[in-house]
Amino acid sequence: MSKLLDDVVRELSHLPGVGRRTALRLAMHILRSSEDDVAQMIRSIGDFRTGIRYCARCNSLSDNEFCDICSDPTRDPTTICVVEQVGDVLSIEKTGQFRGLYHVLGGVISPMAGIAPSDLKIDLLIDNISGANHLGSDNNAPVAKIREVILAISTTVEGETTLFYILNRLRAYKGLKITTIARGIGFGDEIEYADELTISHAIANRREISGMK
Amino acid sequence: MSKLLDDVVRELSHLPGVGRRTALRLAMHILRSSEDDVAQMIRSIGDFRTGIRYCARCNSLSDNEFCDICSDPTRDPTTICVVEQVGDVLSIEKTGQFRGLYHVLGGVISPMAGIAPSDLKIDLLIDNISGANHLGSDNNAPVAKIREVILAISTTVEGETTLFYILNRLRAYKGLKITTIARGIGFGDEIEYADELTISHAIANRREISGMK
Repeated sequence: MSKLLDDVVRELSHLPGVGRRTALRLAMHILRSSEDDVAQMIRSIGDFRTGIRYCARCNSLSDNEFCDICSDPTRDPTTICVVEQVGDVLSIEKTGQFRGLYHVLGGVISPMAGIAPSDLKIDLLIDNISGANHLGSDNNAPVAKIREVILAISTTVEGETTLFYILNRLRAYKGLKITTIARGIGFGDEIEYADELTISHAIANRREISGMK
Repeated sequence: MSKLLDDVVRELSHLPGVGRRTALRLAMHILRSSEDDVAQMIRSIGDFRTGIRYCARCNSLSDNEFCDICSDPTRDPTTICVVEQVGDVLSIEKTGQFRGLYHVLGGVISPMAGIAPSDLKIDLLIDNISGANHLGSDNNAPVAKIREVILAISTTVEGETTLFYILNRLRAYKGLKITTIARGIGFGDEIEYADELTISHAIANRREISGMK
């Protein structure tokens, strides 16, 4: 009917979770938006694709050699929170509860999907911990000795495999505290609908209510 | 964390049905795509936004003054199928069953949403039917006398309002056949889950099975 429409629908259909029907809906939205707004959107996409980099220290997304978090002198450089992907960094940052640094693995070990440990940024993590990565931060702060590594990795089979692989690699570093995030029933989640493993873990790791003491 | 990432996530979040989480997933997909693929996608979006037009005859999307369907001499110009939106044209075209022309209203009458008959392309439809719109088609075919108008409009309150408004406007054209698409239980749909109105309509409009005669 229209080559311009066909083209944009086909291109938008390549996006994950976007079928032809959704692509058409997106195209109609684009049509209703001002030309300036559309120009700004496609410029941000282009700039992102060509300009974004991976932080040389934590492998998170960054506009510069080192990301804003790694370059921030107010963050605690002795604590590293290891996560699978950039989205996890954003989720944890949103809580404002963590003031250490991150390390983005870029996935989990998965023999099924052909992802080996060497495909993940595990060596870079070890280098950061051992001090072999002397890149430091933008403000040339001295490389801090890492005191704690928090493994915030999914409890899937692949996640657990990755966790044990990293634990093994970290065994050599005596005095390094290694923790994982707490597992339990989420706030607002109903116990009835939680899986058995989560429930048994939540009971085994029960905490005394301090006010009741 | 990254201005480039923040910008693209914010821009993509403006798309309908796309929240921050989905926008981030789209950004990650864009990151994994080749620069060429991303350049092609944003070019198709820009070209679509700046280049697309509304067909001067049927109000569907078009690359030229008249759309491919209105310009196609093999289509039957005596039958017009009136639809709400461009997506409906694509859906009907996919069946390959309809060889007439279309007319895209661009919505339905909705006092609640502030959409009056004058906001829709109803006058253009009347002009096409009355022969007042002497634009013809790209190949300068003579303006054909319309024999049938098929109203393929939703059976919502707004759709029915629109249908009756158009019926009223068409009353003046004696000899013009006006039809609506058949309503009933869809193929593959379960009767149990169909609404009462559809079921009663489907029963009232039952057809004799010809093989049983």
